[in-house]
Amino acid sequence: MLDTFTIYPIGMIHKDNHQVSIEIFEAFRDGLFGLEHFSHIIVFSWFDRNDTVEKRHTLKVHPRGNKKNPLTGVFATRSPVRPNLIAISTCKILSIEDTIIHVDRIDSFDRTPVIDIKPCLPGDVSMDIKVPQWV
Amino acid sequence: MLDTFTIYPIGMIHKDNHQVSIEIFEAFRDGLFGLEHFSHIIVFSWFDRNDTVEKRHTLKVHPRGNKKNPLTGVFATRSPVRPNLIAISTCKILSIEDTIIHVDRIDSFDRTPVIDIKPCLPGDVSMDIKVPQWV
Repeated sequence: MLDTFTIYPIGMIHKDNHQVSIEIFEAFRDGLFGLEHFSHIIVFSWFDRNDTVEKRHTLKVHPRGNKKNPLTGVFATRSPVRPNLIAISTCKILSIEDTIIHVDRIDSFDRTPVIDIKPCLPGDVSMDIKVPQWV
Repeated sequence: MLDTFTIYPIGMIHKDNHQVSIEIFEAFRDGLFGLEHFSHIIVFSWFDRNDTVEKRHTLKVHPRGNKKNPLTGVFATRSPVRPNLIAISTCKILSIEDTIIHVDRIDSFDRTPVIDIKPCLPGDVSMDIKVPQWV
């Protein structure tokens, strides 16, 4: 086995009614420089509520928690229970105010730790993808 | 500041001439169940060669290492130097043999640690994205 790696939270998701924002911690402020030239970002967060030994050892799930969906390996799902609790969401930037990025929506809980932000690039758009029936 | 989180490698990228494959470690075999029904995956890996205090504190870079590109915050680039060294690549699955996923291509070094695999979903295709000139 290989070494483990350490993730440092760089910010936090905030949800207040329908307003969704991403706070970037002061120490990481410079990392945002130039982000205003992009329209969309990929927000990487950590499913911190599932950070237990048991959940990190779960390798098969019923997708979307629905028993009607066939038992499936976590790497073939977006399950929030998986060995490394990385979540991704593609968000549209509404505005950036200082170290706060206001976005259209995000499928995460309030106060979820953010671990990375990457800009969406034209090459991310993949065509002709095939998915199983349960998707 | 929040707690840190621990990443466990789940596999490794292998490049041999033009053949690219992703080895999933035996302990994570069950996580692949059902992946054959998807055409594309997002491979999450760790820029392990940059896992130094200095590189993890770098917050601005010239994109693609080209000084002609304006100094830009790492969260507005795909730079391999950033606080959390997460890389993503969208890959087409060519075949899956046991715990080896053969893919079309990946922009990573041989023997890069893999930290997660997620299937590509139709919703990942975002339209009308805006990017700066240097992209």
